[in-house]
Amino acid sequence: MSIQTGTIHGVGLGPGAQDLMSVRSDRLLRGATHVAFFRKAGRKGQARRIVDGMLPEGVVEFPMEYPVTTEIPLSDPRYNEILSAFYQDCCDHLRALVQAGHDVVVLCEGDPFFYGSFMHIYTRLKDEVPVQVVPAITGMSAAWTASGAPITWGDDVLTVLLGTLPEEELARRMADTDALVVMKIGRNIDKIRSALKAAGRYEQAWLVEYAAMPEQTVQPLAQAEDKVTPYFSIVLVHGQGRRP
Amino acid sequence: MSIQTGTIHGVGLGPGAQDLMSVRSDRLLRGATHVAFFRKAGRKGQARRIVDGMLPEGVVEFPMEYPVTTEIPLSDPRYNEILSAFYQDCCDHLRALVQAGHDVVVLCEGDPFFYGSFMHIYTRLKDEVPVQVVPAITGMSAAWTASGAPITWGDDVLTVLLGTLPEEELARRMADTDALVVMKIGRNIDKIRSALKAAGRYEQAWLVEYAAMPEQTVQPLAQAEDKVTPYFSIVLVHGQGRRP
Repeated sequence: MSIQTGTIHGVGLGPGAQDLMSVRSDRLLRGATHVAFFRKAGRKGQARRIVDGMLPEGVVEFPMEYPVTTEIPLSDPRYNEILSAFYQDCCDHLRALVQAGHDVVVLCEGDPFFYGSFMHIYTRLKDEVPVQVVPAITGMSAAWTASGAPITWGDDVLTVLLGTLPEEELARRMADTDALVVMKIGRNIDKIRSALKAAGRYEQAWLVEYAAMPEQTVQPLAQAEDKVTPYFSIVLVHGQGRRP
Repeated sequence: MSIQTGTIHGVGLGPGAQDLMSVRSDRLLRGATHVAFFRKAGRKGQARRIVDGMLPEGVVEFPMEYPVTTEIPLSDPRYNEILSAFYQDCCDHLRALVQAGHDVVVLCEGDPFFYGSFMHIYTRLKDEVPVQVVPAITGMSAAWTASGAPITWGDDVLTVLLGTLPEEELARRMADTDALVVMKIGRNIDKIRSALKAAGRYEQAWLVEYAAMPEQTVQPLAQAEDKVTPYFSIVLVHGQGRRP
């Protein structure tokens, strides 16, 4: 009897609230036999935490623990080498599971194809085994919904920036857009504040922390304290385009 | 006995597939007593079509029919006047329902706060009656998922443009971004092609029509025919940022 190859499902979990997951993701999770997820060593992992109580009994869990995160600077050539070997190890394990006939659900915070770690698995395995991707509500959608104001009107231009970019580039792009989303805030907050000021957008900026989670906060960035929650914070400037 | 005021729920339906709706949207729809939705006069309406078979028996439907869409140019001052009066009429009806104690689910294609018509109701009613918004998977998320490639890597910049912008502005912004999403393609397709060529991005552009719907197509824009489905088509250029 030949074994039928399984499928890897890259399942977007959305911003964090279980009921903001798609019906398709919800069904895949509740029927899962194998789940895999990234996490920092020694942590439970945010993706895993989101699905607490949803996984069936007896599900086999495969935590994929990042070998480095912020200990080595991005510019160090070892960073890419170490991460690349790590993703390859993860893929070897996932491929073996799928080739043994198992379906594997890979938990993805937010939307899998929007700045997600799953992409590193996807590109390595998509030509070897069946991989399906379920999109999800992005963290930025949850943030602008939490802010209580639409992000884009009429033909507003939306620019999405990561706080890791150089300050001059941030400032230039912040000045040249209608609506703005800045992600990866954490340790970049001072640089982001300076760039917003240089761009003349500081007074219009909002800080949303833990969007769609119980700890959610929404405040004008100018009134926020200097300490900002890493990873779960987003800065927004709302577009002011045409509206009847 | 006093009547308890109801709530307006602006419910994001996502890109079109019923199971890509959030669990929260799904529950609100299946428990709805009143639903409202925008549509072109004489049409069933795309938002209404998405929820076919989900609404409970006896639900009261309130179609809100646009008085004008493309018959009057945006630049004509009457356009804003007519649309503004239309939104006010819709709001009067919705306010009356809510004040009579009914909860009303307003169907929103895509994500309500991302270029959506619901925003015009939201801003008019949010200070008068309770309004809750449920975010959703955007059409662009469905499009990049359909394309089979991640839209953003590392610290890629993402720019979202509407095809209604002037060609020179489109070209300038297309040249100055890593990842690109262009929406409102339809009758703007020739201008968008020219702008992409001027920006040197034409050969990297993909056209996704009807993302997440049964009619979905994905093809390099350069190989697509001149006729493009209005409203349900999105042009993408994928970011090529840092990846281990």
